[in-house]
Amino acid sequence: MKFDAAVMGSGIGGYPAAVYLADRGLRVAVVEEHLVGGECTNYGCVPTKALYHFAESAKFVEKVGGEVAYRWSSLVEWIRSVVRESRAGIEYLLESRGVVLIRGRGVLAGPRRVLVESSGERSEIECDKVILALGTDPADLPVARFDGHGIVSNREAPYFEEKPSRVLIIGGGVVGVELANAYSSLGVEVTLVEVMEHILPFTDRDIASVLRAHLSQRGVRVLEGASVTEVSRSSGAYVAKLTSGEVLEVDKIVVAVGRRPRTSGVGLEAVGVRLSEKGYIVVSEGMETSVKGIYAAGDAVGGPLLAHKALLESLAAARSALGEEAFRVDYKLVPTTIFTGLEVASVGYTEKELSALGVKYTRVRVPVYFLSAVKIKGHKNAFVKVLLDERGERVLGVHIVAPNASEVISAYLPLYLGRLSVKEAARTPYPHLTVSESLRDLAEYILGEPVHLVVKR
Amino acid sequence: MKFDAAVMGSGIGGYPAAVYLADRGLRVAVVEEHLVGGECTNYGCVPTKALYHFAESAKFVEKVGGEVAYRWSSLVEWIRSVVRESRAGIEYLLESRGVVLIRGRGVLAGPRRVLVESSGERSEIECDKVILALGTDPADLPVARFDGHGIVSNREAPYFEEKPSRVLIIGGGVVGVELANAYSSLGVEVTLVEVMEHILPFTDRDIASVLRAHLSQRGVRVLEGASVTEVSRSSGAYVAKLTSGEVLEVDKIVVAVGRRPRTSGVGLEAVGVRLSEKGYIVVSEGMETSVKGIYAAGDAVGGPLLAHKALLESLAAARSALGEEAFRVDYKLVPTTIFTGLEVASVGYTEKELSALGVKYTRVRVPVYFLSAVKIKGHKNAFVKVLLDERGERVLGVHIVAPNASEVISAYLPLYLGRLSVKEAARTPYPHLTVSESLRDLAEYILGEPVHLVVKR
Repeated sequence: MKFDAAVMGSGIGGYPAAVYLADRGLRVAVVEEHLVGGECTNYGCVPTKALYHFAESAKFVEKVGGEVAYRWSSLVEWIRSVVRESRAGIEYLLESRGVVLIRGRGVLAGPRRVLVESSGERSEIECDKVILALGTDPADLPVARFDGHGIVSNREAPYFEEKPSRVLIIGGGVVGVELANAYSSLGVEVTLVEVMEHILPFTDRDIASVLRAHLSQRGVRVLEGASVTEVSRSSGAYVAKLTSGEVLEVDKIVVAVGRRPRTSGVGLEAVGVRLSEKGYIVVSEGMETSVKGIYAAGDAVGGPLLAHKALLESLAAARSALGEEAFRVDYKLVPTTIFTGLEVASVGYTEKELSALGVKYTRVRVPVYFLSAVKIKGHKNAFVKVLLDERGERVLGVHIVAPNASEVISAYLPLYLGRLSVKEAARTPYPHLTVSESLRDLAEYILGEPVHLVVKR
Repeated sequence: MKFDAAVMGSGIGGYPAAVYLADRGLRVAVVEEHLVGGECTNYGCVPTKALYHFAESAKFVEKVGGEVAYRWSSLVEWIRSVVRESRAGIEYLLESRGVVLIRGRGVLAGPRRVLVESSGERSEIECDKVILALGTDPADLPVARFDGHGIVSNREAPYFEEKPSRVLIIGGGVVGVELANAYSSLGVEVTLVEVMEHILPFTDRDIASVLRAHLSQRGVRVLEGASVTEVSRSSGAYVAKLTSGEVLEVDKIVVAVGRRPRTSGVGLEAVGVRLSEKGYIVVSEGMETSVKGIYAAGDAVGGPLLAHKALLESLAAARSALGEEAFRVDYKLVPTTIFTGLEVASVGYTEKELSALGVKYTRVRVPVYFLSAVKIKGHKNAFVKVLLDERGERVLGVHIVAPNASEVISAYLPLYLGRLSVKEAARTPYPHLTVSESLRDLAEYILGEPVHLVVKR
């Protein structure tokens, strides 16, 4: 089969490029071995956020003294239905653009040839351009190898057939804390183990501390600086031994310690596509690999493993492939969001990073519990932290720890970008009874004229 | 008593000015007849949003097949506790700034004199500056006069001692639709009557239609172009006759047909403060009334009766009173937000307004159900509408009809302000699994390169 372009992978690093190219008249094939939509749609963002919204709702009803009854199987069936619908949406997008979806395992057989294997049958694609959107796989641990039912990754975690009573989550990164928050909110006994000094090791300690307190309040046992030394099975349950000597019996173990790029066994080396030491695909600013005409985007090129970063990379790759004006993805503008009731959203630098770089900065940290929108949700420790350069002019980082932070960070982006001044933010009537209005309060505070914040002088 | 400034009213049109003035060294008194915090804190935003968040959570649990049990009295007690805490927050703000809170009814006895009456006792304040933050009262109807328990306003509506079975809401403005949404989500049988052609008469019909469909889905009977001609009591219930001839029996009637400024009987006319025909206080751009040294802010000056508008006016009034550089409140930048599950948030012009002004415009309207963040909440009709000038350059209005729209509108404000270009928005990695990322999709669509939207050509 002859195509203008072949996109390997239909996840959010792949399908946007396919759509973009098809819209510009190219004949495009997408090769997908598993489910259309990839990790985000099928195992990541979509199912975990569906679970999350239910968990938060149930928890909120209980907070106000109510009781919630539901069937776990209905919850999981509903999560499946949301995912199915999201997946169908992407299939429809591809179809509407006339993109040919080829199901099977794609292997690069040359810079312009992709072999596709599906249940023993082989087909061959010839194409001018290739876009690699290969994604990542969850990594397991020598002491806790995935077994598909009891020791699992994020892929099985939103879909447990029965409600587990006790879950051990190994890894206190984004995936780990999100699942810990959701499960515990639904009454599951959760132990979260993080080997580093604190959970969310990539962010600042003050943020991690507040999140740890939040998780503890939800009933999660958070063990930091701890790891699992041994796991064994015992009559249907799993027994895990921790570095502290403690022995835990649980129903499920979720390993969320990191990802591995899906870059081996697909012919990259043979064709000459350069990989980093960790196996990520090395790309230029225009998302081109070391082989002319082969581009890559999404998780498999490394960087923050986030859907919105993958999407922009995918589009940048497509534009490069077309010879259009390349646009650079601004990685320092990619927000991180953590969906944990008391959500965390960050953009730009952490204090940790600035200190490591030797950059002097001014730290503005304001509590936001005075906002009724926060009070209603009940998160006393909510705060916003903004890091400014030494002269207090440029915003180097924004960190929001508050309900709805995942939405609110988008209101802060123009401030971070320097497109909105602090003075303008202070004069902008951000709507009341939202968390976004914290931006006005923060700006007033920086200007030295805070209304809702009490400055100790 | 001698003060530098007296602020009449401790609502959100009043307390910010008091804080600002006190922070600049003035001796400030706030006169409050009722509860500190005024309408927003005690009867408006805060209690209705508390009720709303509970109602949405309960509804969401039910959507996924769960059941919710709770005691109405616990719900109301919790709402009261949130309000008490918000009120205490404002009291603390005033106290922390050394503002003297004087409880009682204030009457202007001269341009620099305020008389305060409290349980028969009278005191007198002499001051250089007065800021009037008098607020509004709910209006009732000749056929439905408030009786304090069965025919009520927004002031009683979040606090019913028992869960009503059947409620008639007269008035399909913001207050009416918000209460209709919350009550119906909690299983109350709600009839919503709007005299105009459609609910939310100030906005465009397409927005109102989608909201009507949403309310209907929640179980609200929405009657447009209808009104109540007669109300009578019948053994504990109320019987309302509608223009259609229909007779309705209900437990409670909420009248939400508008507001009246609290500007009579407080000595304004005697001192020479000019009022508009409808009784609102006439102010200059610097929020000064027709009497030098007397300023006004908030609902009592008219315009959009919104907390965030009142707050900025309050600060503008304070600055004027101090002779500082005045800043003008940009009324076209004041977003309207409607908290109805499928929320509505708007800034700038409606199509209706542009047509009336004879301004030609381009309408960009995109569905946003493709966003998984919307799919999870299940609002198939969600959309974003942006009105551009004829050349497609300037943004004249933004209308978001989607869950979380109240937060999301703040991310759109820089686009509306012209501080963020469409091209920049298209390149910004707004975080995935939020509704804010609709901004990137909308921008791509305007640029003619949509990924997630299918353009019929």
